[in-house]
Amino acid sequence: MFPALENAIALISTLPGIGNRSATRIAFQLLRSDERSVQELAEALVDLRRRMRFCSECGGLCEADVCEICEDTNRDRSAVCVVEDPGDVFAIERTREFRGVYHVLLGALSPLDGIGPEDLRLGELSRRLVSGHLGQTPIVELFIATNPTLEGDATASYIMDRIVPEGVRVTRISHGIPTGAAIEYADQSTLARSIRARTEMHGSAGRRGFDG
Amino acid sequence: MFPALENAIALISTLPGIGNRSATRIAFQLLRSDERSVQELAEALVDLRRRMRFCSECGGLCEADVCEICEDTNRDRSAVCVVEDPGDVFAIERTREFRGVYHVLLGALSPLDGIGPEDLRLGELSRRLVSGHLGQTPIVELFIATNPTLEGDATASYIMDRIVPEGVRVTRISHGIPTGAAIEYADQSTLARSIRARTEMHGSAGRRGFDG
Repeated sequence: MFPALENAIALISTLPGIGNRSATRIAFQLLRSDERSVQELAEALVDLRRRMRFCSECGGLCEADVCEICEDTNRDRSAVCVVEDPGDVFAIERTREFRGVYHVLLGALSPLDGIGPEDLRLGELSRRLVSGHLGQTPIVELFIATNPTLEGDATASYIMDRIVPEGVRVTRISHGIPTGAAIEYADQSTLARSIRARTEMHGSAGRRGFDG
Repeated sequence: MFPALENAIALISTLPGIGNRSATRIAFQLLRSDERSVQELAEALVDLRRRMRFCSECGGLCEADVCEICEDTNRDRSAVCVVEDPGDVFAIERTREFRGVYHVLLGALSPLDGIGPEDLRLGELSRRLVSGHLGQTPIVELFIATNPTLEGDATASYIMDRIVPEGVRVTRISHGIPTGAAIEYADQSTLARSIRARTEMHGSAGRRGFDG
C-alpha cells in the first residue's frame, strides 16, 4: 500500500532478532520522531560500516585493517584465545591476565538458530593453526573462552575435535561460582560444574582441599 | 573505545524493544554486511520519514497531510472508529464492514510500559468529539475497536469514562470465538467473554437462543 513503509519494514526486519512485527513498531516510531534524529540514526549506521571493520587477522573490531592487539609485537603469538564476540576481547583485555592474541569466531554454533560451522570464523582458525608451518610463530596453546552455554560448549567441543591439530595444547576458561556470589543462590548447573572442577588449596598453614 | 561503534549502538538502542545487547548484535551484523546494503537500509529509514506521515485528521498513515479515507466525501463522518495502530485501519478496511472514518490512538494505555493518556492521541479525539459544535458533522457513534487485551480494554474504558461527551453512542467491537475455531481449545477468557456476550438467534423456523 505504501512502498516507502513496506521497503523500510522489509529492510529493518533483516536485522538479527527483529521480525516483521518489531520492524513495524520501529517504523512507526521513526515516523513519530523528528526528521533530524532519523537522519542521525541513518548516518550513524553508514558511518559505523565505513569506519569500523573486523581485523583481518583475529576478527576483532578495529578501525584499520589489522587491530592493535595483532599489531603489538609484545604479544605472545604462540597463545591464541578463541572467543565468540569482539566484546569478549575487551572484557578479557581489562583483566590483563592474557598476553597472547585472539581469534574471534563472531558467534557460536547454534543449530536452532541455523548457525553452523560455516557461519563462524572456523576456517580462519584452522588456517592460523597450521600457519606455523608457513614460517609464522607456531601456536602452542589454544585457549578456548567461548561462553559456558550450550552453544559455547558445543563450539568448544567442535574446535577441540575437528579443528585443532595434534601437538597444540587446548585449554578452556574455567567455570564456577562468580566472585562475590552466594553458593546458595548459584544455579544448579554452575554449582555442579564448580564442584566437578574443584581445585587443590595450598594454604600457608599446610591446609588441604576436600580432595586431599 | 570506538566512537563510531558506540554512537551507532547508542542510537540503535533508542528504537522500541531494542536494548543495548540487541543493539550491539545489530551493529556487528551491519559490520558484516556489505557497505551497499547498509547504505540501502539507512536510505530506507530517511525515505520513510520523509515520504510518510500520520494523517493530521485521524492519525492513520498517509503520504499527504490528510489520508485518503478522511478525504473521501463518501465516508460517514458521524461514525468514528477508534483503533490502536495504523495497521488496524487496513484490517478493518479489508472487511468493507465499516463506512465511517477512523481515529488512530498510536498505542494503548499501559502503565507498565510507561504509556499514559498523554502519550496517545486522546486530546485529538476529544477535540474531534466536540468539533460538531464548530460546524463539522457531529459524531453520533464512537466505535471503539482497541484490542481485546488488558491495555486495549483499559483504553476503551478510559475513553468511555473520560473523553466521550453525553449524547454520543459508544460501541465496542465484539469479543468471541474466532470464526472456524474450536470452543474446546478457546482460552478461558475469550470463552467467558463470548458467553457473557451471547446473542439472540433468529432462525428461519422460529428457533430461539439460550436466553429465550
